Amino acid sequence: MRAVVAREGVLDVEEIADPTPGHGHVLARPVSAGICGSDLHALHLQAEDPEQLAPMVFGHEFCAEILDHGPGTRTIHPTGSLVCSVPFLDGPAGPELVGLTPNFPGGFAERILLQESRLILVPNGLDAARAALTEPLAVGVHAVAVARLAANDVPLVLGCGPIGLAVLAALKAAGHGPVVVSDFSPLRRTLAERLGADVIVDPADGDPYVTWLDLTGPALPPSPLLEPTALPAPTVVFDCVGAPGLTEQFISSAPSHSRLVVVGVCATSDSFVPVRAIEKELSIQYVFAYRPEEFARSLSLIAEGDVDVTPWITGTCKLDGVRQAFNDLTNPEQHCKILVNPS
Amino acid sequence: MRAVVAREGVLDVEEIADPTPGHGHVLARPVSAGICGSDLHALHLQAEDPEQLAPMVFGHEFCAEILDHGPGTRTIHPTGSLVCSVPFLDGPAGPELVGLTPNFPGGFAERILLQESRLILVPNGLDAARAALTEPLAVGVHAVAVARLAANDVPLVLGCGPIGLAVLAALKAAGHGPVVVSDFSPLRRTLAERLGADVIVDPADGDPYVTWLDLTGPALPPSPLLEPTALPAPTVVFDCVGAPGLTEQFISSAPSHSRLVVVGVCATSDSFVPVRAIEKELSIQYVFAYRPEEFARSLSLIAEGDVDVTPWITGTCKLDGVRQAFNDLTNPEQHCKILVNPS
Repeated sequence: MRAVVAREGVLDVEEIADPTPGHGHVLARPVSAGICGSDLHALHLQAEDPEQLAPMVFGHEFCAEILDHGPGTRTIHPTGSLVCSVPFLDGPAGPELVGLTPNFPGGFAERILLQESRLILVPNGLDAARAALTEPLAVGVHAVAVARLAANDVPLVLGCGPIGLAVLAALKAAGHGPVVVSDFSPLRRTLAERLGADVIVDPADGDPYVTWLDLTGPALPPSPLLEPTALPAPTVVFDCVGAPGLTEQFISSAPSHSRLVVVGVCATSDSFVPVRAIEKELSIQYVFAYRPEEFARSLSLIAEGDVDVTPWITGTCKLDGVRQAFNDLTNPEQHCKILVNPS
Repeated sequence: MRAVVAREGVLDVEEIADPTPGHGHVLARPVSAGICGSDLHALHLQAEDPEQLAPMVFGHEFCAEILDHGPGTRTIHPTGSLVCSVPFLDGPAGPELVGLTPNFPGGFAERILLQESRLILVPNGLDAARAALTEPLAVGVHAVAVARLAANDVPLVLGCGPIGLAVLAALKAAGHGPVVVSDFSPLRRTLAERLGADVIVDPADGDPYVTWLDLTGPALPPSPLLEPTALPAPTVVFDCVGAPGLTEQFISSAPSHSRLVVVGVCATSDSFVPVRAIEKELSIQYVFAYRPEEFARSLSLIAEGDVDVTPWITGTCKLDGVRQAFNDLTNPEQHCKILVNPS
């Protein structure tokens, strides 16, 4: 089969062997597969140190059509079914993250293996392109679930890339608002508007925390023994940027008792002075991925029309366009999500 | 009156004017007042930059005897009553932290002003020395309340100075255990043992996280779709040290979904790599001080015999011994808490 192989930090379309289904696996044809920021990051790491990251086929956000059922399967969904799945496949060494392991190919290939027990049928005649956005939406659904927002919380979303848009969509789908978002990119601010952001800030024009403060009332006093104060209410901030300095900005700018939910992945060292966070009794919650039930709910939100993911899709390509697509995605003004159609 | 004045980073006993009660204030005689790590820290800051920290009288952990009632008071407690109070006094500019403001003297003086509405009568004939430990105990009671522990959580307390001992005492009083504690100081480990620590680690001998892991069972799988795993259960770690590097240690060593409650004050910059915290979905809660009801409950815990604070008291002194006591407290092998008897 043809597949986009990442080798020493370079993407090339190669002819490789079709994968052979193991116990409980189905063989499937990826119909649409999204390129994720993690893929760009992994390619970068591989270029820096090829020994650390063996050659692999990326693609962990996908919608696929079942072609064949392997040993130990129960034909829960017939051949020809359009399915999504959390990207985990049980191999000899335990569950592996399909699309980020050298042991199984991901969605940027003509064939993929999926775990039958984890398949979810795409409902309502939903097209594969939008179904492929289930995985990134689930990241937002999970982050919002972990944040345990109160009904009157006014969340602030920093960064409107795919993760920020997923958090925004999950917030709006859960009925929260007003939601304040910020991004330096005009394109991404436009996408946020289409996804229902209530207040949109260009951080080059002004501090999003200041805009946020205008929307909230004073804090309730922490105890009946203390007088009501003019302090602003705490907020929940979603860091969907993943760059050094965001935590320090949160500590400096957020009101007491605010919570920072870190969804964007910062892989370099970050620093701040804890005493300021202590004085404000701030908290920081790091979140990662999603639970299977949140993945299933995300597909349902798209299929039922509760979340319109169409604005995210800013481009599509075939396998031989993946290398260029990775380059294009480094420019936040040009693209948000590019979907690969492998066949 | 005589008072220990901190001026340009130096402590001296001086003759200063008696304070005059304002609206709602009572005049009181500090009977016992504890020296807090914050006092040592404030003196250090004042030495570094006298412009930033005007001369003041420290002492925010105290038990005092009412001498007189000022204007606008209701004589809720008669003259001669032994009282404790959260160290906040309403001045012309709003509430001020008594003992850490230049505008009102703290407990290392022959007289102090207290807010009548915040006074709590010392019950059960409890002596002033142990009652003076209400304030530091309240810091631990608050930290444990904020941590929202499950009944079967196995907490780990890093550092057995006054804050660590307060957290330990609050954990044991709330019925939690086993509680694992660690400190490099043999004296402090002995004090922790007297306060009921179940497992005591010298970090020079071994990693407290490793000791902790031996006490806990495997984690429950996060979802019915995933297989049960051999991963260790998450823990709650109380950072009662307040030094750079503790957060990085937590991120490296704690199991997924663990929570770090930061009680020790780190006033210098700290750094770590967020991606590791993201992969484990860790969280960090910074806590500060206490709520008035937690302060009241702390006095009650001491007075009812639920917490024996006697082991904390490793020394007492008069006003002219405060300077030496500050020096002695920099050695964790010599002292834990020194109480000042101002009159």
